[in-house]
Amino acid sequence: MTYIGVIGGARCTSVEKKLAEEVGREIAGQKAVLICGGRGGVMEAAARGARRAGGLVIGILPGHDRREGNPYLSVSLATGLGDARNAIIACACDVLIAIGGGYGTLSEIGLALKMGKPVVGLHTWNLDRPGHGDDIHRAAGAREAVMLAVKLARLPIGNAP
Amino acid sequence: MTYIGVIGGARCTSVEKKLAEEVGREIAGQKAVLICGGRGGVMEAAARGARRAGGLVIGILPGHDRREGNPYLSVSLATGLGDARNAIIACACDVLIAIGGGYGTLSEIGLALKMGKPVVGLHTWNLDRPGHGDDIHRAAGAREAVMLAVKLARLPIGNAP
Amino acid sequence: MTYIGVIGGARCTSVEKKLAEEVGREIAGQKAVLICGGRGGVMEAAARGARRAGGLVIGILPGHDRREGNPYLSVSLATGLGDARNAIIACACDVLIAIGGGYGTLSEIGLALKMGKPVVGLHTWNLDRPGHGDDIHRAAGAREAVMLAVKLARLPIGNAP
Amino acid sequence: MTYIGVIGGARCTSVEKKLAEEVGREIAGQKAVLICGGRGGVMEAAARGARRAGGLVIGILPGHDRREGNPYLSVSLATGLGDARNAIIACACDVLIAIGGGYGTLSEIGLALKMGKPVVGLHTWNLDRPGHGDDIHRAAGAREAVMLAVKLARLPIGNAP
Repeated sequence: MTYIGVIGGARCTSVEKKLAEEVGREIAGQKAVLICGGRGGVMEAAARGARRAGGLVIGILPGHDRREGNPYLSVSLATGLGDARNAIIACACDVLIAIGGGYGTLSEIGLALKMGKPVVGLHTWNLDRPGHGDDIHRAAGAREAVMLAVKLARLPIGNAP
Repeated sequence: MTYIGVIGGARCTSVEKKLAEEVGREIAGQKAVLICGGRGGVMEAAARGARRAGGLVIGILPGHDRREGNPYLSVSLATGLGDARNAIIACACDVLIAIGGGYGTLSEIGLALKMGKPVVGLHTWNLDRPGHGDDIHRAAGAREAVMLAVKLARLPIGNAP
Repeated sequence: MTYIGVIGGARCTSVEKKLAEEVGREIAGQKAVLICGGRGGVMEAAARGARRAGGLVIGILPGHDRREGNPYLSVSLATGLGDARNAIIACACDVLIAIGGGYGTLSEIGLALKMGKPVVGLHTWNLDRPGHGDDIHRAAGAREAVMLAVKLARLPIGNAP
Repeated sequence: MTYIGVIGGARCTSVEKKLAEEVGREIAGQKAVLICGGRGGVMEAAARGARRAGGLVIGILPGHDRREGNPYLSVSLATGLGDARNAIIACACDVLIAIGGGYGTLSEIGLALKMGKPVVGLHTWNLDRPGHGDDIHRAAGAREAVMLAVKLARLPIGNAP
């Protein structure tokens, strides 16, 4: 089974919200596990899309109270780690899809790429540094992003657990 | 829904293994989520018991590779945090059941009690320090331990998510 | 140089406070680095003893604001990790001295022993589990505790950095 | 006292190394504490510059063995947290200076900006996302970077500890 992270802002535009919900639905359609930060905005929209399509959604929260998770999580995990929980999201996934996002999302992109996890981007950060390419895989829409993520995932689909 | 942690050694006796499997089965029977460290021994036996009874089991691993999780996990979360992941297990649960265990389990008991999470004990550490009581709730068997855990859980059953 | 952790409660008895201050002074006398949780009680007393004897004291705080550190720290490190910072204290030291303490200290003892770091105890937890010994090295006083800690430290004194 | 983080790659160009060493020297000249990831490249050069100018340098390592720290650290702290230690570096500092850097550095920039810590950049990432500015403060050289960092630091110099 593939574990796909969906990262993005707790506040987002309506375009990002719509994209996130579609991404969630497509992830559920692929029978992949959706992992996110468990809060609002992009995280909540993706979770809603996935759950409504019968998917499994894990929220990895920064705080101590799992009731802070959005209402669409299958499992809400309170870590108590603050922003250090971003490293867990990157570590736990096979591949991540970034939708919009602020500095928290930027840190997750950096952590994921540092760990060698592929990142698919939708309306998200452009990375630029002399001598570095931008290793984010760009997708034009939600379905393309999930197809690309599944293809890029390092653990082949069907691999346990 | 109640989140019950099951903590114990990656190596354990056959008595502990049997207890852990029963505890897992009872947790699934209560429709509670079982959270564990994802490795072998007590963690694997509890996961096996729960999954065979249709339960949901989350393993929170110390390492970077989720394939290190035991084969009975519903979701295997690689944190990359090493032993610091013990704090996440304590934080994510409403109540914990300790079965046997070594120093890692002792640390999880300490972290849980520090965070105000009740701990139910089966053949586990006795705590003793002048002026301190031993706040572990002792149970005589697997079923009693899970009943006690459900009762002690701070979030009432049915509470979202 | 040896790194010695001093762990104990943020609240403590006057006997523990006196012991902690002596332990801090002896650590400074050994030219060892004192690492602690940076808060009050035992941590503050040990830091005070060490600084007054010219020692170097690092406080590893659970919160986000380094001004929460006690006034005797040479360096106050805010981790933002909550109780998961206990694992860093255990990891960063060569050996730990536990003075009194509650459940947080118990968790640090467990984490340290799990990581193979020796623990010296002064008026602290007794560990008891059938089939397990109590691996805490008991000392009768502050000076003996520090001498024992230096001897038990796995990295020989003088080893860089 | 101001705590200034210096972040950058474990591998770097000779230009970056020279800049980092100058930055370290200037930080020591300001009587500020230098915090870094404790490894090679930019981290080692900055540590060397600071120590040679009499400064205090704390290395916060990802691994379990403090001997992995570079030889110029005053204190080498093994966290055992892997890349999650990047969040501690961001949390522990008042302000950060990014010199060159790869994805790990990018994640630290994101974490710092998320936590509201100012970031000064020297030959480092350009951030770009429609609707977002690039909040990195650019400096033309080492001395200017440190002057700017000191000015931006949220805790006024001289504040304890």
